[in-house]
Order: sequence, then C-alpha cells, then structure tokens
Amino acid sequence: MTYFKIVKKSKKSKARLTKLTTKHGEIAGPFFMPIATRGAVKNVSVDEMMELGAQILLSNTYHLLLEPGMAVMKKASGLHQFMNWPGPILTDSGGYQVFSLGKHRKITEHGVYFADPKNGNKYFLTPERAVQIQSIIGADIMMVLDECPPYPCSKKYAKESLELTTGWAKRCLAEKKKLKNKNLLFGIVQGSTFKDLRTESARQLTAMNFDGFAIGGVAVGEPRQKMAQVLKWVEPLLPPDKPRYLMGLGRPEELVMAVKNGMDMFDCVIPTREARHGRLYVFNFAKPNINSKSFYKTIAITNAKYKKDLKPIDKHCRCYTCKNYSAAYIYHLQKTQEHLGLRLTTIHNLNFYLELMKLIRVAIRQGKL
Amino acid sequence: MTYFKIVKKSKKSKARLTKLTTKHGEIAGPFFMPIATRGAVKNVSVDEMMELGAQILLSNTYHLLLEPGMAVMKKASGLHQFMNWPGPILTDSGGYQVFSLGKHRKITEHGVYFADPKNGNKYFLTPERAVQIQSIIGADIMMVLDECPPYPCSKKYAKESLELTTGWAKRCLAEKKKLKNKNLLFGIVQGSTFKDLRTESARQLTAMNFDGFAIGGVAVGEPRQKMAQVLKWVEPLLPPDKPRYLMGLGRPEELVMAVKNGMDMFDCVIPTREARHGRLYVFNFAKPNINSKSFYKTIAITNAKYKKDLKPIDKHCRCYTCKNYSAAYIYHLQKTQEHLGLRLTTIHNLNFYLELMKLIRVAIRQGKL
Repeated sequence: MTYFKIVKKSKKSKARLTKLTTKHGEIAGPFFMPIATRGAVKNVSVDEMMELGAQILLSNTYHLLLEPGMAVMKKASGLHQFMNWPGPILTDSGGYQVFSLGKHRKITEHGVYFADPKNGNKYFLTPERAVQIQSIIGADIMMVLDECPPYPCSKKYAKESLELTTGWAKRCLAEKKKLKNKNLLFGIVQGSTFKDLRTESARQLTAMNFDGFAIGGVAVGEPRQKMAQVLKWVEPLLPPDKPRYLMGLGRPEELVMAVKNGMDMFDCVIPTREARHGRLYVFNFAKPNINSKSFYKTIAITNAKYKKDLKPIDKHCRCYTCKNYSAAYIYHLQKTQEHLGLRLTTIHNLNFYLELMKLIRVAIRQGKL
Repeated sequence: MTYFKIVKKSKKSKARLTKLTTKHGEIAGPFFMPIATRGAVKNVSVDEMMELGAQILLSNTYHLLLEPGMAVMKKASGLHQFMNWPGPILTDSGGYQVFSLGKHRKITEHGVYFADPKNGNKYFLTPERAVQIQSIIGADIMMVLDECPPYPCSKKYAKESLELTTGWAKRCLAEKKKLKNKNLLFGIVQGSTFKDLRTESARQLTAMNFDGFAIGGVAVGEPRQKMAQVLKWVEPLLPPDKPRYLMGLGRPEELVMAVKNGMDMFDCVIPTREARHGRLYVFNFAKPNINSKSFYKTIAITNAKYKKDLKPIDKHCRCYTCKNYSAAYIYHLQKTQEHLGLRLTTIHNLNFYLELMKLIRVAIRQGKL
C-alpha cells in the first residue's frame, strides 16, 4: 500500500494521522476537501485556495459532464489544466446528482438515462462511462457510480439499490483496469440506515480491490445520531490500511466525532454555502480545545450589531479576510450585495475548516484526540 | 502649485504628462480611476487593484452616505481604513446620483432633499454637507456639488442649472476653508451643449481658487461629437497649471482623443460593467499604436467560438487572468454563472484600461502623441 500510510494511530480513539499520495501531491490526513462543483470553488480563486492551504479539491462529475462537457475537458487535458489547480482532485461519480433529478432520469441495471433539466440534452451514465469520464477529468481519486437511496426509504428499496450499487462497483473496477488508469478508485458503502444492509455492503465492497472506501448515503436528511450509528457499524468492517471517506459531512463537531471513529476524509458544502448566507465560523478561544463541546460558534455577519464593529470577525484568525478587513466592512459588503463580500466570507469559513483539520492532526500527533 | 506638476507637454497635441500629489501618494497622469462605487471595486479586491497598478480609485458619496452611512465612516476614520485601500481616493459629490432620483428628490437653492428609494429614509444634501461628507470619507480629491442637467435640455433649464451650480461651487469652497480640510477640491464646468453657457461656466469657476477643474455633464446621452465639441470650447479656458478631469468617460479611443485635447483624469464604468457582461477589451497588436484608428477590439467571451479555445483571451496580455486561465475556462465560468468569472473578466478589462493609460503616458514621453 505505497500510496497510503498511517503515520500515527491514536490510543484514545480510532483517529489516525495519515498520508495519502496522489499523482498531484501528498495529502496529510485527516483532511477536508473544499468543493469546486463546476471546476471553481465558488467565489475563490485557485491561488487563494493554495494560500488557504487546501490540499485537495472535490469536483462534481455530473456538473462537468454538462458544462463544459467532455469534449472541452479532453482538449484541455483534464480539469487540473482547465481550472489551473496544481493539487489533487477527487471527483464524485455523478450518481448522487443524477438520482436527485427525479422524473428527469430512469434507472436500469445497465445504467441511468437522464436529461439536462436546463436544455433537455440526453445522457446515459453507466458505471463504465462514470470511470471513463473521471479519467478524462484526470481525477486523482475517482468514485464508483452508486445509487444513493433517499432517507427515509423502505428496506426493500434499500436492498435492491444496494445490489445495483455492488454490481456497478465491480464494473467500475473492471473499467479502470481496462483503461489502465493508475489513479485511485474508491468504493462506496451504501445500505441506508439498516444494519444488516450496511454490513453486507461493506463486506461485498471490501472483497474487491478498491484503493479506499467511502461511506455514502449519510447526511441525506437522516437524524444525525443515525449517521453516527452507521459509522459505528461500518468502520470496523473497513480495512485499516486503506483511506476512509465519510461523504458529504459535516459540521465541525461531526468532523471531530468522525475522525475519532476512524474516518480520514471529508467534504461538505457547509463552509462555502453558509459563507454565502453570511453565517461565519469562529473558534471560541485563541487555542481552541476540539475535545470540548463548544469549541466554536457561528455568527450572522448581517446582524445589525456588526454594522459599526471595526474589529475583525475573529481577532485570533489569520485568514486574509480577518487580517485585512473589519466585521463592519463585511457587513457593508453583504448588505450592498457586493460579490467581494462573498469572497471574503468564503475565505474565512474555508480557513476555519482547514484550520480545524490542522487542529485535529496536531491533536492526534500529540496524543490528545 | 506644489501638488501638481506638468512633467512634459506634447508638441503634437495638447497632451500633458503630469504628476499629481495627494496625501496618499503621487499619481502619474494622464490617469484612469477605476470605480469603487460602494467602497469596493465590483468583484476585485484592493490587493488585486494594487497588483493591477491602479493609482487611485473613485468612490460615490451618494452610495456611501446611504450605506454604510457617515456614522460608520466616521468611526472607521474614513474610507481608506474602511476598505483597506492605501492609495488616493476621489469622491464625486453625490449630486449626479441625487438628481437622477427624479420624483424622489426636490431641488431648492439651499440644497436638495431626497429619499433613499430602498427604505424612504430622508436626506438633505447641501453644498456644505457635500464637502463635510467628503471630508468624513477622507477623499484625497473632493468634487463640488453640482447639478448635472440631462441631455437634451432647454437653454433656459441649462442656464438656471448653471447659476445654481456656480453658487454651490462657491459655498463648497467656503466650507472646505471653514473645515480647514487640506485635501483637493475640484470645480465642475457645466452648461450642457451650449457654447456660451459652457464658456460662462468655465469663466465663473476658474475665477475661484479650485485645485482642479472637471468637465461635467458629458457622457449623459449626448452624441459623442457634441462631447468633443464641449471639450474644445472649455479646455482653452481652463488654467494650464491645474489638473483637468473629464467626468464619466469613456471608450478607449475617447480617452486618447481627450488626452490629445488636454485632459488629465478619467473615470468610467465601462471596463468593469462590460466585464460583467462578458465584453472584453483586447489590443490588436503586441505593441499597439494608440494613434491608429483601430488599436483595439472587443470580444464577447460568451460567444460559442470560445467554448474550446484553450488560449488566453490575449496572448500578449500580462494580466492575472490571461497569465493563468484560458478563454474556454472563462467562457465556462460565465456560462455557469460562477462569480469567479466576473472577477477574471473585470481584472482583464481594468488591466486593459490601465495599460492604455500607460501607453498614453509613454507616447507623450516619447513625443508620439
């Protein structure tokens, strides 16, 4: 397993300090992947992402398939070149978005037919095609095409969906081999909130030679304690020497909890999306204790109390926003709908999430998590 | 006249190479002022403005009066600190926006009553108040409160408006003296498109001790040749040893024309506004000849031909956008409405305008304009 190393294991929890090697560089874990849905982190440039210390970005296959499309992606020699991002990229398989299309898609065992809701253009996504597309994109980490069942769903639906997902996973692996693609491909454990289905899914997938394993179908509307339970069922079944990715999560305390439960990789729209709504993350102390219950708070920058607040959002924060601008200025930019405001809040929140992951890694290194 | 120096005068035209000294630095002229309406250049940070080589920004008194308001501005010790811009700032007087409010404002000799169309908040702007506000903002260059008559307007209207403007100019100058404000205050020559009124306005204003003179009421919808005519009427009446500012202009060839007619300072929404609509300015050659008729072109980046164009917008351009991204990527960002696209196009267009001013200064220095 030369691409993945466990640098240190916690004695207090299942937390692991890891190093994942990709064609575009090494990633210290546990790590968080900011989201560049359409080949751009909303409101932030790649240079700013580098200054923030982002180690890897996540991009969405579905969105890139529609725009700019694979002809452009091929001509550009992949997403790294297209968006000018030198670091690693993980892509989802597109499955999640396609299944969310509702009446605009039709699933068969062979694959899924769907139409672009904007212009009606028709697509057919198969497991093979999902791997081909991610190869064209040049993703350092690819994800198998899976079906992510909604929450709640019947056990019957979850079981059938699981069988589909397992069969597709096999075909993805075969396609990767056929293409001689040397990048990483991760399987995705599904099974909704049913213990036996989750167990079966983990067993089936770990029997195949994936480079890492994701837990999917969480953060889709289920109560948060169910998510924690899924994690406790599945984690012991995952091979300890391969990376584990908890998809779509989450709030800061959830990331800490998931790391303690052996997870290495995360992605979430929360920091970027909430930034656009003016909700900002702030650590409660200069040296926050991430083991404590309330190591951070969120503030609404559009609250009238910030109108005249000439201090930075967080005087301890070292992000570009806090080092250069006051809360009052950001309040003003949000109130007057200047896009610069969205940039500054997004930078602040991403910095918070990336700092949190640093704190997590330091805590593991120091035996404190 | 220690704040203003004519470094070189052209022998071929009325063009002048100038140096204007303000509390926040020297400005090489002729120069262009990018617009930061609400204390932010739309989509661009102050760091990016510095990297672009912007020497001065223009901000709008009317907008700042409404948001964030003068209480915040006072507490922040002015706009420089509030927006974190270390260079010079020119503010308009707010008159232009107030008079555009139509039924929401009422003019008397004493001043103008107006209401914020958004929330109905009432304001009363007098010449004295305009100078007080610009003092709170900390503008390096302030403008007198004037009435800018619409085009077309009757001679009667233009004449009455002119009398108001002259009276107000006098009161602005008195208020500046009273406040012991050591920054610069410019008078504004009005008079619509009537030669005798323009002449009278110039005569009245230059009799007062302003630090510079602007030509206002152009680029308000009149035919462009009328604007050129106004310039030819007014320019000879302006003192040669003070800066001249042609307000609200213009297209690249108009800037060249105006410089040849003795103008030193410009501001315009064109580069930033057109960038937001995907219209980009490109020089026609690596070493463009600004004396030629067609030294540049504009392109519509949303044109389908750019979808697969992996070259930069302009291979000779050294802006951040052209050095780092392809036309295809910018096309993609515009098509998918990613704000980053607006940033990249705005940077490109501002770079074009600032480069154009550099070319103009070099041409004057080399005796070629």
